[in-house]
Amino acid sequence: MTELRTLKVALLGCGNVGAQVARILIEDADALAARTGARLQLSGIAVRNVNSKRDVELPQELFTTDAETLVKDADLVIELMGGIEPARTLILSALQNGACVVTGNKALLAQDGPTLYEAADKAGVQLSYEAAVAGAIPILRPIRDSLSGDRITRVLGIVNGTTNFILDQMDSTGAQFADALAEAQRLGYAEADPTADVEGHDAAAKAAILATLSFHTRFALENVHCEGITSVSAADIAAAKDAGFVIKLLAIAEKLTDADGGEGVSVRVHPTLLPREHPLAAVRGAFNAVFIEAENAGELMFYGQGAGGTPTASAVLGDLVSAARRLVLGGPQRTETTTGHVPALPIEAATTSYYIGLDVADQPGVLARIAQLFAEHGVSIEIMRQTIHKDAESNTESAELRIVTHRASEAALAATVEAVKGLDVINSVTSVLRVEGV
Amino acid sequence: MTELRTLKVALLGCGNVGAQVARILIEDADALAARTGARLQLSGIAVRNVNSKRDVELPQELFTTDAETLVKDADLVIELMGGIEPARTLILSALQNGACVVTGNKALLAQDGPTLYEAADKAGVQLSYEAAVAGAIPILRPIRDSLSGDRITRVLGIVNGTTNFILDQMDSTGAQFADALAEAQRLGYAEADPTADVEGHDAAAKAAILATLSFHTRFALENVHCEGITSVSAADIAAAKDAGFVIKLLAIAEKLTDADGGEGVSVRVHPTLLPREHPLAAVRGAFNAVFIEAENAGELMFYGQGAGGTPTASAVLGDLVSAARRLVLGGPQRTETTTGHVPALPIEAATTSYYIGLDVADQPGVLARIAQLFAEHGVSIEIMRQTIHKDAESNTESAELRIVTHRASEAALAATVEAVKGLDVINSVTSVLRVEGV
Repeated sequence: MTELRTLKVALLGCGNVGAQVARILIEDADALAARTGARLQLSGIAVRNVNSKRDVELPQELFTTDAETLVKDADLVIELMGGIEPARTLILSALQNGACVVTGNKALLAQDGPTLYEAADKAGVQLSYEAAVAGAIPILRPIRDSLSGDRITRVLGIVNGTTNFILDQMDSTGAQFADALAEAQRLGYAEADPTADVEGHDAAAKAAILATLSFHTRFALENVHCEGITSVSAADIAAAKDAGFVIKLLAIAEKLTDADGGEGVSVRVHPTLLPREHPLAAVRGAFNAVFIEAENAGELMFYGQGAGGTPTASAVLGDLVSAARRLVLGGPQRTETTTGHVPALPIEAATTSYYIGLDVADQPGVLARIAQLFAEHGVSIEIMRQTIHKDAESNTESAELRIVTHRASEAALAATVEAVKGLDVINSVTSVLRVEGV
Repeated sequence: MTELRTLKVALLGCGNVGAQVARILIEDADALAARTGARLQLSGIAVRNVNSKRDVELPQELFTTDAETLVKDADLVIELMGGIEPARTLILSALQNGACVVTGNKALLAQDGPTLYEAADKAGVQLSYEAAVAGAIPILRPIRDSLSGDRITRVLGIVNGTTNFILDQMDSTGAQFADALAEAQRLGYAEADPTADVEGHDAAAKAAILATLSFHTRFALENVHCEGITSVSAADIAAAKDAGFVIKLLAIAEKLTDADGGEGVSVRVHPTLLPREHPLAAVRGAFNAVFIEAENAGELMFYGQGAGGTPTASAVLGDLVSAARRLVLGGPQRTETTTGHVPALPIEAATTSYYIGLDVADQPGVLARIAQLFAEHGVSIEIMRQTIHKDAESNTESAELRIVTHRASEAALAATVEAVKGLDVINSVTSVLRVEGV
């Protein structure tokens, strides 16, 4: 066998994922070399404190605090520090030096992706980031390459395991949000400060990346409408369940055409009802899945582990081997195509179906008045169901009205809900939730 | 905007998939050019009869019967004729001329893949075949690229829509195989001669391709053990359903380690019970799905349309755009790595769990005798359930015994079943079926 070329790999960051990447690079060195056509030599691991305790035992001499020097001498750089700086500066420096970069930094990509993509294009090197969305699930490469001859129309993703675990707990045990969050924290599925997950910020960054690749147009975090799950109540979950739905936090990117034929993309994250038969409804616990609709391919779904050190390390190493193969075989790389130039739409332009729960007076003509009001605002009702509750003690009756609409715009729905609130027969609007998959 | 280079695309075959590929190449020419960085010009379509009626209207001047000349002048060749010859000769001629080739020909790949891969490597051009397995589902590229840094341990695929439709019909309506097949033929899901589908030959070719990419070792059709679904009865389906299982025709490729630490890969196709909660159990009708277990990534599933002209055309065009991008950007390509060299195992070396149905005499000690016999053959029982049926008319009783075993070898199981048959308390062995996903 001929002597294999050696490629130097610099690892920046040694947390949960980084430590597993380092372990696999060392343990599987021979198999990786056989598949790559080059030896991938871990030349160093940049960390803040070389003496920190780590879950995985790694050679002490690999650790350094001097990330800049490590990057200068590398053929391939893996960035797993997270955060904006110094990750951004180190990645740009690596790309300018001609190194290929693999990163899982969704926050940085969503905030300043274009700068990174341009630097990679200019240097003719590869920037890959499969690990940034949905952990171990191969989703970015299939969108970018396998579907490159198709037109994606819609992407629905369960891309945050923490919120999926919390919603799943609420659905299966009837727990309130706060209790389900506490359980998720106890089991290590949620961090001590869960804001980025439960407010939807993590999912929003991933939505921006998915939208950019799916619609060949750059979308940034500010183009993503974001609502978290903190206001989802046990009563919402119970009502959804009763009506045959499950509530999921979805990252959605879809192409919409307005009345004049103008195209735009709505990118958003919010709690969403899905029919229990929908493929995404069965995605339980901390698992992730991305559902794609394309003009020719039809419906596709990709399912797997969305987080965790070892699964995410698999995605990082897939990118690393692919980048290294290109270095061995030669030829420049292009990271994404952004020739679509479709505009990002505000949430008001999004259209979905809605589930609306109303507590109404139990008297004749109420249904008709409400139906009339929906019609006046151009919102078409698909299902309307009234349940009468009798209180034996007070001998009073109350009525609960559940409405599922056809697709309507956010603006029309908001106006409808405002008008409904003004009716004297309405005691309260108990829920307004979006529905997909019907 | 600078003038784009033009790449000539020759299309061989214009059936269901080919016609859709031609349509999309013409209709989406601008979008494909933007994503590729080159214009993809359909230079001709080779067919047997230029005057055949086709579902899609295409410019008549594109059609030719002279495939050889068309191939000689092409930068990219799409082969969708199917069958071994002349497809094989035309693909080899295209590769030798330096053209990249996209094919969906699973039969040819399974029979003579190595010859094609070697010709592509020698010429330094790309041979891609995403459409050959699971239609529109991006599965080969994720295995080859995204999981290139991981170790796949097991692949379970529903890769034949015809048989999945038939089994699904039997499961939901209680129909016998012959009736469900007739229904599939009526709806166009099964061909007039359904042999290749129902005997498992189509799935076996796909299993060979999946195994080759997953285990970095070349597997041919003769390495695949193949059983179809023609002997699956309505009673089998009913019993499986009753026990909480669904029967699927699975293409399986898994790495096994023997007692001495020797490794091998078992590649097989056969009807298989899956627990109803398994992600693959929910794959209904003519849909396809591939479930992958990898050491680091854990469990992954890829789901979508496995056949049909337009969905399969999406996979063909994804390969075409990827190949064209490489031509534009430069650099040679490698199609697969075959550095694994693990041996293909015969079916006798495979281990799975089994479901065994027995019609037994209703008398004391029967269970104990059967359990003893399993133990003697080294087959461990996981679940044993006895149901007594009383016939009111004849006032006789019969007993039905259902056994699910732990994982055992095919050889041990076969010997056990033979021995069980010899017991005087056994009226008949009603089913022996393999179980996965428990």
